[in-house]
Amino acid sequence: MRKFIVATRNKGKLKEIKEILAGMSYEVITMEEAGFDKEIEETGQTFEENALLKAQKVYEALGEIVMADDSGLEVDYLNGAPGIYSSRFAGENASDAERIDKLLKMLEGVEIKDRKARFVCSIAVVFSDDLSFVVRGTCEGYIAFKPEGDNGFGYDPVFYIPEYGKTMAQLDSEEKNRISHRGRALNLMLEELKRMEEKCENSGHQ
Amino acid sequence: MRKFIVATRNKGKLKEIKEILAGMSYEVITMEEAGFDKEIEETGQTFEENALLKAQKVYEALGEIVMADDSGLEVDYLNGAPGIYSSRFAGENASDAERIDKLLKMLEGVEIKDRKARFVCSIAVVFSDDLSFVVRGTCEGYIAFKPEGDNGFGYDPVFYIPEYGKTMAQLDSEEKNRISHRGRALNLMLEELKRMEEKCENSGHQ
Repeated sequence: MRKFIVATRNKGKLKEIKEILAGMSYEVITMEEAGFDKEIEETGQTFEENALLKAQKVYEALGEIVMADDSGLEVDYLNGAPGIYSSRFAGENASDAERIDKLLKMLEGVEIKDRKARFVCSIAVVFSDDLSFVVRGTCEGYIAFKPEGDNGFGYDPVFYIPEYGKTMAQLDSEEKNRISHRGRALNLMLEELKRMEEKCENSGHQ
Repeated sequence: MRKFIVATRNKGKLKEIKEILAGMSYEVITMEEAGFDKEIEETGQTFEENALLKAQKVYEALGEIVMADDSGLEVDYLNGAPGIYSSRFAGENASDAERIDKLLKMLEGVEIKDRKARFVCSIAVVFSDDLSFVVRGTCEGYIAFKPEGDNGFGYDPVFYIPEYGKTMAQLDSEEKNRISHRGRALNLMLEELKRMEEKCENSGHQ
């Protein structure tokens, strides 16, 4: 069974990815389980670049299929900020609450119609020496005026989704997996992987 | 007919790409013809990253399918240098001859068996908001002791290919297209594009 390395230290993410890849004949393991424990600096300018550079670094070391992701929040009123800096928006060691606080302050006095935002998740897979792909899942919404809900993490409590009349942090995990940027990106990844494997079977190409 | 934007200013490249895409129903044009004339800085750490970031910048501005490439020479004895810096190896405005000269000096006294090298070409295609791919073509060889041949450009005159007993610059353009890093990457790109388009037809996804 071929190994499928997930470039994450997050056990929750690993579980989710194992579930989505259950139909594929991969042994899904983290990069640490595969013996890679270096820090990778995210020097890219876009989510796609960051995801790809992480996957490439791990692939270079291990030579197995590798996936890596990068995600964040884009707020239109802030010209796309915090974007790729979402997790460092209020400094390297700030809490989710501090990041949310900073965001709400920057949007003080801004009407709901101008608080449009989206969550973005890019997933890169390095499949072989000569083939990589990157998918992007998004979830559109608005920045709420105050945090609501206890599920999820990051900016979820202030990310309001009009179709549900709830914030991301008020959705249960099944709803969230279906409509979230991350759930969508994972589904696109799965589609692509299936096509890659078909190609391999058809052409005998490894 | 959908537009297919080539992020290059090089007319030779455009012609080659038009030929390889002749069977696809695309209108193949350069980014300048499509109205994009900004310089894009190559800030990535790998060929793949640079190709992807260029394609993304143009896609962001134009919203059509975009391809971009990045290529270079990796010399094992120099730990992969000049790599992504191949075109700037002897300074920003140096000539091909100056770059070759610098390379040969750095390999002075190094035996042929230790002069292993490869040309690498990465091509990124941003196909839609949610899907991009990157392919890599390589061509393995050795750095010759002196330049030979007048075809091609860049490091071609010192890139010796044992199977042909010739440098890349001694191959005719048909041979070169068949075995070069660039020819191989273009063929992989074509395969991927065909699969993408099949997917679109099958799923009705744009």
